[in-house]
Amino acid sequence: MNRPVATIKQIADATGVHPSTVSRALDPKKRHLVADDLAKRIASRAEALGYQPNRLAANLRLGRSDLVGVLLPDIANPVFAPILGGIAEVLSAQGYAPIVADAGNASSQQISFVERLLSQRVDGLILATVSQDDELVGFCIERGLPVILVNRSEARDRVSSVVSDDEMGMRLAVDHLVGLAHRHIAHVAGPPSTSTGALRRDGFERAMSSHGLSGLIREASAYGREEGAQAATHLLNSTRDITAVVAANDLLALGVLDALKQRRLHCPENVSIVGHNDMPLMDVVSPPLTTVRIEHREMGRIAAKLLLDAIKSGSSERRHVVLRSELVVRGSTASLRNV
Amino acid sequence: MNRPVATIKQIADATGVHPSTVSRALDPKKRHLVADDLAKRIASRAEALGYQPNRLAANLRLGRSDLVGVLLPDIANPVFAPILGGIAEVLSAQGYAPIVADAGNASSQQISFVERLLSQRVDGLILATVSQDDELVGFCIERGLPVILVNRSEARDRVSSVVSDDEMGMRLAVDHLVGLAHRHIAHVAGPPSTSTGALRRDGFERAMSSHGLSGLIREASAYGREEGAQAATHLLNSTRDITAVVAANDLLALGVLDALKQRRLHCPENVSIVGHNDMPLMDVVSPPLTTVRIEHREMGRIAAKLLLDAIKSGSSERRHVVLRSELVVRGSTASLRNV
Repeated sequence: MNRPVATIKQIADATGVHPSTVSRALDPKKRHLVADDLAKRIASRAEALGYQPNRLAANLRLGRSDLVGVLLPDIANPVFAPILGGIAEVLSAQGYAPIVADAGNASSQQISFVERLLSQRVDGLILATVSQDDELVGFCIERGLPVILVNRSEARDRVSSVVSDDEMGMRLAVDHLVGLAHRHIAHVAGPPSTSTGALRRDGFERAMSSHGLSGLIREASAYGREEGAQAATHLLNSTRDITAVVAANDLLALGVLDALKQRRLHCPENVSIVGHNDMPLMDVVSPPLTTVRIEHREMGRIAAKLLLDAIKSGSSERRHVVLRSELVVRGSTASLRNV
Repeated sequence: MNRPVATIKQIADATGVHPSTVSRALDPKKRHLVADDLAKRIASRAEALGYQPNRLAANLRLGRSDLVGVLLPDIANPVFAPILGGIAEVLSAQGYAPIVADAGNASSQQISFVERLLSQRVDGLILATVSQDDELVGFCIERGLPVILVNRSEARDRVSSVVSDDEMGMRLAVDHLVGLAHRHIAHVAGPPSTSTGALRRDGFERAMSSHGLSGLIREASAYGREEGAQAATHLLNSTRDITAVVAANDLLALGVLDALKQRRLHCPENVSIVGHNDMPLMDVVSPPLTTVRIEHREMGRIAAKLLLDAIKSGSSERRHVVLRSELVVRGSTASLRNV
């Protein structure tokens, strides 16, 4: 491939000066060594010739890349689009760019991704993939790579994180349903290896017991629509009493809806459903989903800011940001009194 | 920041050999110069010490980065998630990684992004952002950077592309509605500066005239839900005859739905709607959207393959892949005969 990028030598020839003068004029740290007029003439000639400063070489000297690795468990899950949008917004405003990897949930695969990112000398990592005691986090800490956890946190407190208030979210969901006279409330939990799965399950149990209730719980094997349908089918098979289901995220809630439809049950007439996340389009599904809203774009923005702070300061101080949740009441929940 | 990455020198000390022997043992191209046993001992010691080959330095010598830039017009639009998923899948299988930029639609902003990517020595670009005569494409061609267009193409034939069959998609949509006895069919078109906007509009007009019909057309200012609602409101204000709307994409179709709701009109009882893309969750919106399905994940995969071919071969041969569309009939369209 032939890349017609101008060299220092060509710019020197075109301006009639020595290449070392061109080098100095084009290096922000040495520009003061060249007369102002000349520096401007060289810069404009360099631009006209399509000169690209070799950032790769410059960064190699500085030991940095201006690149940040972002690991997602599933790039095609709509919930990650706004997180990624927030991350990209903050990074690009500060001259950084994200390398995005669809890393899956297997830690061996994740580590091989991170080894690649390390060899590309990323300046830091944002992980949306962590499990409760994450091998990958240990791997990054050993190598001194700044890491921020987003959306999911670790049980161990080793690195900074930005997450939502899972306990508050579940309290909002359960209080809403209890207020609508529901008593037989079940929970489709997320994978227990994720903080969101474990903490929302805990939050559900605590919120229920604060009302003197206990509810059936079924864990989904992954945060997917099909997995939600399977878990809901299991719950519905085990008892006929359930009048409401709290799902650990919106995709699981959509799966619960699928399971109801298959049994010719209606939402909210037969069973109310509450989701979690308020991911895009939850207002136009049928019925519009009552769900716990998390500001994912803001979550991505904060994660990127924390990471850039850590990269620039070199500090390994841990910071934990917990975003408040908010209940969005739509059509998937109804009062038992009116049914 | 303190990165405890082992150096060649440390590995040499630990194995009791000269650093140059370590260098040779760890360089795939020179390994044959070192005795097999010794090379294995050095490699295992390097691994134990956490040695990271400096890919940045190696790539600098080779003039490549193993990075591919992906420019999206709106990273938070759910339609791009599967495209990105397909791109990441193919790139990572071949040892490449995507740098993703949320580049917007302004070509000045896009060019400044690409300048940054160029300075990071990306090996190629995948653009989902192009307009009909794109400044950015010219910019990349001048610099000899391999470029593949995905989802949107140029009017000028300068680089390879992977797009859907826009004309076929609109014919499927119009034929379906005419088969349901609709005659007063309107079109909410995408921005005319995008190939999808322009070609789907042409396709709509051609499909209508093949049935001896002509339909009202209103262009949306962007591919967004609000813009779709605005365009639909304009159409509904200008005539009361419309019984069906073909939208240039699903987000516009959801906007048409919003506009209907605001006028207390029902879909499909009063107005049928056909979308375009079948983006995630279109089967669970209310009513489930009849739409033209495009295999976006496959589109992303093919774009990544074409780009890697171009990077590896150094050839600038142009290839154009057009994916067939398929109509998915759901609840948002109904026969006029039954209404």
